[in-house]
Parts: sequence; C-alpha cells; structure tokens
Amino acid sequence: MTHYRFADRMIHAPASFIDELFRVSGEPGVISFAGGLPDAALIDREGIARAAAAVMEDEEEGRFALQYSTTDGYRPLREYIAARYRRRLGIAAEADDIQIVNGSQQCLDLMAKIFLNPGDAVGMERPGYLGAIEAFSLYGPRICTVPLGEEGPDMGAFETMVRDRSPKFFYGIPNSQNPSGITYPDAARREIARLLDGTGTVFYEDDAFGDLFFDGRPRAPVKKYLSEGAVLSGSFSKIVAPGMRIGWILAPSPVLRQFNAAKQAADLHSNFLCQVVLHRYLSATDLDAHVRHVARIYGERCRTMCDLIDDLLPAGAARTTPEGGMFLMVFLPPGVSSMDVFREGVCQGVAVLPGVPFYADGGGEDTIRLNFSNADDASIAEGMERLARVVRALV
Amino acid sequence: MTHYRFADRMIHAPASFIDELFRVSGEPGVISFAGGLPDAALIDREGIARAAAAVMEDEEEGRFALQYSTTDGYRPLREYIAARYRRRLGIAAEADDIQIVNGSQQCLDLMAKIFLNPGDAVGMERPGYLGAIEAFSLYGPRICTVPLGEEGPDMGAFETMVRDRSPKFFYGIPNSQNPSGITYPDAARREIARLLDGTGTVFYEDDAFGDLFFDGRPRAPVKKYLSEGAVLSGSFSKIVAPGMRIGWILAPSPVLRQFNAAKQAADLHSNFLCQVVLHRYLSATDLDAHVRHVARIYGERCRTMCDLIDDLLPAGAARTTPEGGMFLMVFLPPGVSSMDVFREGVCQGVAVLPGVPFYADGGGEDTIRLNFSNADDASIAEGMERLARVVRALV
Repeated sequence: MTHYRFADRMIHAPASFIDELFRVSGEPGVISFAGGLPDAALIDREGIARAAAAVMEDEEEGRFALQYSTTDGYRPLREYIAARYRRRLGIAAEADDIQIVNGSQQCLDLMAKIFLNPGDAVGMERPGYLGAIEAFSLYGPRICTVPLGEEGPDMGAFETMVRDRSPKFFYGIPNSQNPSGITYPDAARREIARLLDGTGTVFYEDDAFGDLFFDGRPRAPVKKYLSEGAVLSGSFSKIVAPGMRIGWILAPSPVLRQFNAAKQAADLHSNFLCQVVLHRYLSATDLDAHVRHVARIYGERCRTMCDLIDDLLPAGAARTTPEGGMFLMVFLPPGVSSMDVFREGVCQGVAVLPGVPFYADGGGEDTIRLNFSNADDASIAEGMERLARVVRALV
Repeated sequence: MTHYRFADRMIHAPASFIDELFRVSGEPGVISFAGGLPDAALIDREGIARAAAAVMEDEEEGRFALQYSTTDGYRPLREYIAARYRRRLGIAAEADDIQIVNGSQQCLDLMAKIFLNPGDAVGMERPGYLGAIEAFSLYGPRICTVPLGEEGPDMGAFETMVRDRSPKFFYGIPNSQNPSGITYPDAARREIARLLDGTGTVFYEDDAFGDLFFDGRPRAPVKKYLSEGAVLSGSFSKIVAPGMRIGWILAPSPVLRQFNAAKQAADLHSNFLCQVVLHRYLSATDLDAHVRHVARIYGERCRTMCDLIDDLLPAGAARTTPEGGMFLMVFLPPGVSSMDVFREGVCQGVAVLPGVPFYADGGGEDTIRLNFSNADDASIAEGMERLARVVRALV
C-alpha cells in the first residue's frame, strides 16, 4: 500500500463543509436553508440561451470563443465591468485594472498565494466567510479576526490588529456579509479607510452581494475612500449564473501583475466560451433591471423569514436584519447548540448551517446561518415551522 | 506609494513566456510556430453549438447547468471519461476515480499544492513542460530533471534521481511530449514502472496528447504497468475545444481526497455549463473518429515541416521525429543561439519558441520548439523559408 507523502499544508486544511452541504441540500424532503444558492428559477436562462446561440452560430466568433485565450480575460467583458464600476459606483476603473477569474473563490486562493508566507498575519471578520477560511488556511497564515456587529467591524479591535499584527491584507465583505448578512454603515467604511491609510495592509473587499440590496441602492465600497492598497472582487454568480464560474478582481497594477502570473500558473485562463457568451448576454440585457427584480424577491423572502423567526423561535433567540444578499444569522437561545440544531434539523427535514466553521479562531457554537434566496414562501413557512420545533425541543 | 508585501514564492516565479507568446503569435504578418494552439478550424463548432442549444433550450437542464454544482464535476461526464479509459486503454477506471479541472494546467497547480513543501524534490523531464515548471516553481521545490531522448528518460539518471532525491512525484508526458515531441517507447514505460515500484514516488503522467497519434493507435500509459502510485491527467483542450477549459485527473482515492479539498478551496468547481454542454456533445459524437481526423491532418503538417527542416536548415541542425501531438524540437547548428533566432525571427515574420525556459535547471540554448498544429501547408512552407533564412544568417 503506497504511503502518499502529502504537503504539510494539507494538514492545516479544515474539514470542508461546503461540498457536504450541497449534498445535504439536495436530499429529497429536506427544506434547505443551509446552502448558498441563488434561485435558479430567477436565472435568465432564455437570455443566456439566445446569447450562446448567437455566439456559436457565428463561425468566426464561435471558433474564437472555443480557442485558447489570454490569461487576463476577454477584453470586452473587462470593459463592461469597468464601465459599470464607473457608472454605478463612481470608481475610476479601466479594463486593464481587471482580471477575470473562476468566480470570487479563485480570488481568495490567488490573493493568499501572492501575499501569504506561512505564519503571516491575515485579517478577517468574526464570523467570516467559510470559503475564505478554507482558501487562506492552505497557505498556513495566522488568521486574526475582528468581531463583526451591526455597526461593522469593531473599530478598536480593528485598529489594534492592524497596528500590532500588520496583516498582509484584511479580507471583508462590507455588503450583506456572508454569513451574518450585516452591511457596514458608511461611517465604518470611512473609518476603515482612515485606519488603513499608510499602513501597508491591503483592504481586500469581496463584493459578491453589492447588487442585491433590497432597496436597489448601491453602497460606496471601502475602496472609494482608500487612495491606494485596495482590492475589490466581484462575481456574476449571484446576478447572472453561478454555473458559468465568472468573477473578477479589480486591483492596483503591482498586485494585478503578480495575480496574473499566479492565475496563469493556476489554469492559464478562465473558460473563454462562457466569457464571450456572458458578454454577449450583458450587451443585450438591462442587468440593473434584472438584479433589481431578483433583489426585490430576495427581500420579500428575507422579510418572511425574519417575521417567522420573531414569531416562532423561543425567547432568547435573536437575528441579524439584512439589507440585502442571501443570508441572515440566528443567535440561538442560551444553551442550545448549533450542531444539535443541524443534526436534529436534518432528521426533521430542515437543513441549516452551524456557525462554528465561520469562526476561524473558535466560537460561534450558538449561531446558525440561514439562506433565504433559494426557497419560495411556502417552503420558508414550512421550513421555519420545522426549525422552530427543533429549537424549542432543544431549549 | 503603497509598498506591497508579496509572498516569497512570487520571487521564485520565473518570468512567464506563455502569455507573451499568445500575444506575439497574434501579431499581423507573423507566421507563428511559437504557440501551442490546436487548429480552431478543426474544432467541431457546429456540433458543440447543437449541444449547447439542446442544453439551454431544455428548461430543467439549462437551469441545472447554470446553477452551482459539486466540486468533483458532472457525474455523466466523469462516467464518459472512465468508460473511455476502460474501452481505449484497458484501465479499470470509474467515475469516482475522476475529478474535473480547468484544463490540465490546474492539475499541475493542485498536484504541486497537495504534495510539495518548500525544498521538496520533484522530478521532471529535461526539457520539460514550461507550464509545469511555472506551476511547480510557486511552491518552492527543488526541481530535479532527467534527460529525455528518443528512447525516453535516461534510465540511469532516472534510477539515481529516484533513489537519491526521493521526489514526491515525477511529472512526465510519455505521449508526444511538450516541447520535444518525443514518445516514450513501451520498454521505457515498463522500466519506469519497475523502478518506481515501492519507492513512494508517484508517477504523474500528463496525457494531453495521447489521442493525437498520427497512426491512430493508442499507447499504453505508464499507469497500466504501475500497481499503485499513479496519477493520470487528461484534457479536452486538444481533442474538443480549449476555450471550454475542461480537463480531468484520474488518481487513487487518497490522492483524490486531498486534490478535491484543494480544488474546492481554489475555485469551488469548474464551470458547470461547459461540463454539461461537453457531455451532451460527446454523447452525440464519434469522438474517436473526430480525433483520428484531426490527428491525420496534424500528421501531414508534421511531415511537411520535418521535410522542410531537412531540406532548408543548414548542416548541423537536427530535429526530433514526432509520432503525434503538436510539437517538434529543432537542435540548432553549433554556435547559433535560440534567443537570437527568436528575436531575429519575429523581425522576419516567423515566431518560434526558444528552448531555454523548458530547461528547469539550465541549458537548451541551442534548441527551439516548433508547433505544427495551427498552420496550413502554405504557412508552414513560407514560415520555414523565413526561419531557414534567419538560421543561415546566424551560422
């Protein structure tokens, strides 16, 4: 029997929840609030089908889209993204500031790859995004966390961490954070920019959900207040279709050069056919109107879920109040363990995500993450009834 | 001005040639033998277009293909790959032995990620594939090379390297190697398996070109002779379409478990839309007949190029004799530098790839790699005339 001599970094790797979750989410009879899926019924399949047909029927464009391409990504798509930043957020972005990646997740891996030596400090929110913890951990950093509340990151803790640990970068999701659903107030964004100015700590801002504010109003990213040292990532997964795996990074040129070299070594370039089809689709679509429609529906589902939490969960439970995105967080009544709620929930036909894996340095035993984007009102009502029964039985 | 504190591994990164090459290859008036592109005119665009339309027109399948999926990849596609291994090569493969990746390049990154600590030995051919050198280098290994000749790797050097350096894995391309075009004879494959048996060194076999033998006859992979410790990667890039970025790895389950964790952290999963479209395409296509057609044409181009090398290059030049694939290697006459041929060639309207970056530990100054898959007979004739003029002027 061969003894495989794996790298030490694989020992650091936390047991992965995400893939397991997709499996549990798919089991028949289980209403799942555990996953992180957008509602596939809201994907504009017909529009994407028309774009795909137009690209493939054109002999020249079809062959072009099926051939190898350059690492940076399809230029017209990068131009579209840059123009949208200028128009929507007033950020002076150009196509050359943008690199296409395989969804935001690849940004997490490549940012860690280009910045982190083993033992380097990296900052993030507590709770923080699980996919980021998994990606960063393979590079063996010290993950330093700052508590996240309704007012954003705890600014005292943030200042101390930047001063004492000097993290290579701080990773945060200011808009409808995953898992908490919290949106940083504008004052917190300005304060973060002030505290980071001149420190050499990069602010790595993951904006996967910025298009999904229920009120349709964009929020200014932290990058807007930072003169330099800002990296912003985005994704079409939540606003067009996750199966295409197309995201991007907007970064200063010294960062982008290293990022591009790492991307090339990682997989040469992102799938080009989807890049060309996606650009063709976006050229024929009012994306703003589409995402307003999606966000309005998610907002209704979020309110339904929040009302049911308030009505059905026993005293001592609490929750966040999302302004957008796909997730909210529930704080369980004292003494109720999220792992028990997870296990008992699956038996009772409702899947939730225990908060523990989102706490990189421990804690979170009394929290669960709920996803509200991928269930209709009837499923939310039935699922929350089941969840409430589970929690009441555990109090 | 922010001083970005990049990771030490980015200093190891060799200056990249591949992206630069795609740019040079595309300049007007330049006949390029420098790239590594299959001929886009031989891609079955109509067949892929029909498959894409069928997937997208089906409401259920279309939405399924546009949603998130699991890390391992689309099961019917993995079943197709496994069945083809069983039928074509007599390898006992199942869908569960296979993980879908973003082209073979991602296997290089993830194999290095799961196996290599800084300073670990990794074995490869000299010359060796540039994309592998770039991917491995970011993990800081000692790259140990074994000279590659028409009889395969130098077996004495191979044995010594395995015994004295105990590399975590040896990476090789037994079928129509990149850059040399050399195919290991069967005896070399058996000998490698014999030498590796029980050593704990994995044989990582990159089979990007195994379908492109000009005579249409498959060669038994080294894996067939190894009882365990074998990893085999493949790709649809050269046989269907590179722009879809779909490759795979076939590996023993302990390796696949680590590989899957690394893949999930890297980008969750490969683009799912292309996986579903590709499977639909393969289900309606005689892939064997398609690749025989492509390989026959590449074979004619290879012979044309070989004949012109023999006729036109000055005395002292030599070349390999490929049995398949997309590349051959030219050994320049004594005293002629490949960098001079590269630079002067671009001025004269012909692009070649200097051999130097393929020699991980130095050498190769007198070699160039020529690609014959992406130029028609007229371009090959004109390009070789230009190249011969350049070389003659430099003798």
